Amino acid sequence: MKQGLQGELSSFLAAYRPGWSLPRPFYGHETVYRADLEHIWRKGWLFAGHACEIRNLGDWLTLQVETDSLIVIRGEDGAVRALHNVCRHRGSQIVAPGRGSTKRLVCPYHQWTYDTKGALTFCRGMHELDKAEFSLKKVQCEVVEGLIFISLAENPAPFAAARELMAPYLKPQGLERAKVAKQVDYEIHANWKLVWENNRECFHCNINHPQYIKANWDHYNADDTTPEIKESIARAVARSEAKWADAGLAVSHRETGMTQFPDAERGIWYSANRTALVAGWVSESMDGKQVATLMGGYNDADVGTLRARTLPNFWNHSSCDHGVSTLLLPSGPRTTLARVTWLVHEDAVEGRDYQLERLMPFWQLTSEQDWAICERQQKGVDSSAYEPGPYSKYKEYNVDAFVRWYVKTLAAGASA
Amino acid sequence: MKQGLQGELSSFLAAYRPGWSLPRPFYGHETVYRADLEHIWRKGWLFAGHACEIRNLGDWLTLQVETDSLIVIRGEDGAVRALHNVCRHRGSQIVAPGRGSTKRLVCPYHQWTYDTKGALTFCRGMHELDKAEFSLKKVQCEVVEGLIFISLAENPAPFAAARELMAPYLKPQGLERAKVAKQVDYEIHANWKLVWENNRECFHCNINHPQYIKANWDHYNADDTTPEIKESIARAVARSEAKWADAGLAVSHRETGMTQFPDAERGIWYSANRTALVAGWVSESMDGKQVATLMGGYNDADVGTLRARTLPNFWNHSSCDHGVSTLLLPSGPRTTLARVTWLVHEDAVEGRDYQLERLMPFWQLTSEQDWAICERQQKGVDSSAYEPGPYSKYKEYNVDAFVRWYVKTLAAGASA
Amino acid sequence: MKQGLQGELSSFLAAYRPGWSLPRPFYGHETVYRADLEHIWRKGWLFAGHACEIRNLGDWLTLQVETDSLIVIRGEDGAVRALHNVCRHRGSQIVAPGRGSTKRLVCPYHQWTYDTKGALTFCRGMHELDKAEFSLKKVQCEVVEGLIFISLAENPAPFAAARELMAPYLKPQGLERAKVAKQVDYEIHANWKLVWENNRECFHCNINHPQYIKANWDHYNADDTTPEIKESIARAVARSEAKWADAGLAVSHRETGMTQFPDAERGIWYSANRTALVAGWVSESMDGKQVATLMGGYNDADVGTLRARTLPNFWNHSSCDHGVSTLLLPSGPRTTLARVTWLVHEDAVEGRDYQLERLMPFWQLTSEQDWAICERQQKGVDSSAYEPGPYSKYKEYNVDAFVRWYVKTLAAGASA
Repeated sequence: MKQGLQGELSSFLAAYRPGWSLPRPFYGHETVYRADLEHIWRKGWLFAGHACEIRNLGDWLTLQVETDSLIVIRGEDGAVRALHNVCRHRGSQIVAPGRGSTKRLVCPYHQWTYDTKGALTFCRGMHELDKAEFSLKKVQCEVVEGLIFISLAENPAPFAAARELMAPYLKPQGLERAKVAKQVDYEIHANWKLVWENNRECFHCNINHPQYIKANWDHYNADDTTPEIKESIARAVARSEAKWADAGLAVSHRETGMTQFPDAERGIWYSANRTALVAGWVSESMDGKQVATLMGGYNDADVGTLRARTLPNFWNHSSCDHGVSTLLLPSGPRTTLARVTWLVHEDAVEGRDYQLERLMPFWQLTSEQDWAICERQQKGVDSSAYEPGPYSKYKEYNVDAFVRWYVKTLAAGASA
Repeated sequence: MKQGLQGELSSFLAAYRPGWSLPRPFYGHETVYRADLEHIWRKGWLFAGHACEIRNLGDWLTLQVETDSLIVIRGEDGAVRALHNVCRHRGSQIVAPGRGSTKRLVCPYHQWTYDTKGALTFCRGMHELDKAEFSLKKVQCEVVEGLIFISLAENPAPFAAARELMAPYLKPQGLERAKVAKQVDYEIHANWKLVWENNRECFHCNINHPQYIKANWDHYNADDTTPEIKESIARAVARSEAKWADAGLAVSHRETGMTQFPDAERGIWYSANRTALVAGWVSESMDGKQVATLMGGYNDADVGTLRARTLPNFWNHSSCDHGVSTLLLPSGPRTTLARVTWLVHEDAVEGRDYQLERLMPFWQLTSEQDWAICERQQKGVDSSAYEPGPYSKYKEYNVDAFVRWYVKTLAAGASA
Repeated sequence: MKQGLQGELSSFLAAYRPGWSLPRPFYGHETVYRADLEHIWRKGWLFAGHACEIRNLGDWLTLQVETDSLIVIRGEDGAVRALHNVCRHRGSQIVAPGRGSTKRLVCPYHQWTYDTKGALTFCRGMHELDKAEFSLKKVQCEVVEGLIFISLAENPAPFAAARELMAPYLKPQGLERAKVAKQVDYEIHANWKLVWENNRECFHCNINHPQYIKANWDHYNADDTTPEIKESIARAVARSEAKWADAGLAVSHRETGMTQFPDAERGIWYSANRTALVAGWVSESMDGKQVATLMGGYNDADVGTLRARTLPNFWNHSSCDHGVSTLLLPSGPRTTLARVTWLVHEDAVEGRDYQLERLMPFWQLTSEQDWAICERQQKGVDSSAYEPGPYSKYKEYNVDAFVRWYVKTLAAGASA
């Protein structure tokens, strides 16, 4: 059987042509979806939430990766851990999906009881049992500057390089001292890769994102950046350099177009950078004005935007006053869950320091515009008439980079 | 894999016994459904709609054949064409399913732009591209007297014979100069073949169609047509002959029972004829009275009914004053979409020349009665206790003819 | 293909470890579900309903076993029979699922007509047919003291031993002279075996069933029954013995914990016994007081409780004044239909002799508590992290017994 599946997957991979979009089976075939889960989602590092969402000892949240429910919990010792939400007795879920706070994890079925590290401490009626053999199964967990990442793999790739690159960029934003202002879950009726392909270019922005293009430069690419635009970008970069170089806040993406990500050749699945906003904009808000208290270590609103992203499931755009994280999870060959979280300074008070109706629309609109695009593309690539099309070298280099990263990662996993 | 599927299909076909209903897998098994799509639905000619639905230059409508969305559009040159609704760039659907009118087809994702013939005319950011290689994929399209037919096959069977037979019957009805008075979409929870089997006999009419049997003779068959009934039919035929022979409107189906269709031996999938109505009835309406302006070339209401049907997805019953078309599309092994369209003269004005509440009930009731029957039969043939039963020679000769046509067409396709 | 499935099933069975819960595929894999249907549900005896539900000649009810609709009907001769609800002509369902009463079964499609024994008596238009060959397909049917059991197998196991054991226990309850006070259908989102595993232990009762444990002793097991509890049970048993031994109503389950059932080694799938209630309780009602007229042959309310159960789909708890039957049917790998029926004396009048708001809560709450537990367990065993856990020897001996019975029955069927 396994042989058969790999054979099928191999034939799909053989049909892939670099520089062109993926063949049809990659966007809906059950075999590919299973392979994606096995080789990408159960091997890589997944963004699981924000440390500030489980601020206090015993706070927990759950994450659903396909059939697997995970408990992400801040232990009695203050450390953040991830555990499988499956009792070792008869397999019941221990906590109901959602959030909570507890001193111990008690299975509702027969009250097997685990501490916040997952150790079994009590199992009435089974006196002969060696409790040490029945801890909750652990999941790898790392926290970097307030972002929690987990891996379902037993031996995942080392996290150190990702931490080393991202931490300096993330630190000034102060996500560890943030709070969730709002969280919205979306079910996108599109394969998760279409969501990423959409994320990896701003070629579609001009018509589809009227709000986004007012604040950002991404939609200008090598082939359509006028000298005037180039000069504007250079001015913004220079201003940032002059003001912020010493504080480590200088703009790091200084070119037109989007920063290059991911890097298939070097296996780079993480990235962060600071980018200039259009002159006059200090926040990704509807009018470019500040919409909440300054976050983290910022003393001035004019800091451009911080951007971070990790494959396969996370990106964040942060302004001086708020951050917006997007977490993806596959929920079928043609459906993807997207959880969008708006973060503000932990001391900010709704109504006084920020209003949701000013904080949310920029990214709510931009996100929902993208989900609609992805859903329409899914309907098209499902057609028997769909065949891969060519990517623009000027505008879709990152889509191509994502697809190359994906194909390489999948092929490596499948042949392992 | 393909070998395996054909083997399975072969064993299903081997269990078929002429003169009896189909074995259970034909009404719900995924393998058969896939074979039906491949050998029947993607090879044959499908009714796609009425030319009057896209009357003006640039008018379009969409049709969903399983996963494939098609655009049926009247080009700037007045010709009707069918195109796959899939952008050649990254596969997005170009138009949202439904109807519209446009001078050019613009993909909403990155604004690739096609003319109404499907030629790519604009693709910003991809200067090196040879546009001639990226036209929208074309679908075969034929229009006969206002009825649009398409075929997804590259080399479908010639349409000429169907046109030659149907055109003379259709012409007087004037469907080209009609308009849609009402269109209703139904999702029937039954395999598409059960819908056709139901359509191919009036053995079920006596109890199930109290409206239909008042107007028509079809439910009288060779074994239960009394001399009195035979005489009534003969009188109606003679009256038609006397009045209409010169105008080409003479009744062509002169016998009891339904006209024989399809013809598996000769591969005939199209048919049309004129049939007498019961004396005193000039329209398939609730009371037999005229319910709209006369259509097409008719000068007199007493013209019987025109009937046409093509496999696998179309039938039409037209009276002097209105026509009703039924379009079928498979949407799963056990679900079929039926689109029922009521047509009247293009100059008829609702409220003045016709009222929907008088125009619609006859075929709305008759259709819905049939869908309910088919759904109930689906539940039965899904039972492990179902086994094929015998067809009545007197009353179900056309059901048998349909099943023989289906088995022959499927077997030929699968062995090709 | 069949070879392949058996190979897969064999590998699943090989992973089973006695004394531990079942491996993951048994709770959701399509292959196991199909095998369960074939070897358990289509071979065993299924509880189909109560004879009092079809009290009069011609009364019928339907039962849906996966794709198969069955008609359970009291014939014109007074006998209860079961027939497949599939017309022998073209397979239509004959009666719409539900209940009714009729002198003959008439197919709505073409009016083929069967008598209440299933014999074809009329088929218009098919004069040459040998009617004797087209009876409705029969299903084995047995009635024991008002409980109807059917088997879809051609040669099911003999029913005699089950009748012999159960009849003496059931008789005094008078279920034949009962009536349905209320019937509630539930769709449980859990594999049917999880519902049985839940039913086969009261280890979970302390926390989950606050109502149930007030009335019953089951949750006390060998390892936690104090001398005081043992004495209470002994007193209840002795009281019953003194009062009821002559009437055959003496408590038959005299120990702590639940009576042992099923018995995999001896292939016992049926069981009945009389059990003591807690002192002061005469009925499984919210306060232990009588909530309806005494049933059957009882002259006194103090008769403990009658319990019966048969695999794979039935249990009943009856008190002096009412009985509650639960009927299970699989409706998918992860869904089970449960029909819970409250029965009272046939002469009892609602409002006068019983009130639903007093009659129902005890078992409505207890049932719904169990369904919630099962659904939560299903979510856990679906996790890739689930692995079988050990059963408590003191508290889960009957879960182990059920699993052993299941594995043995399935393996025997699959290897036959």
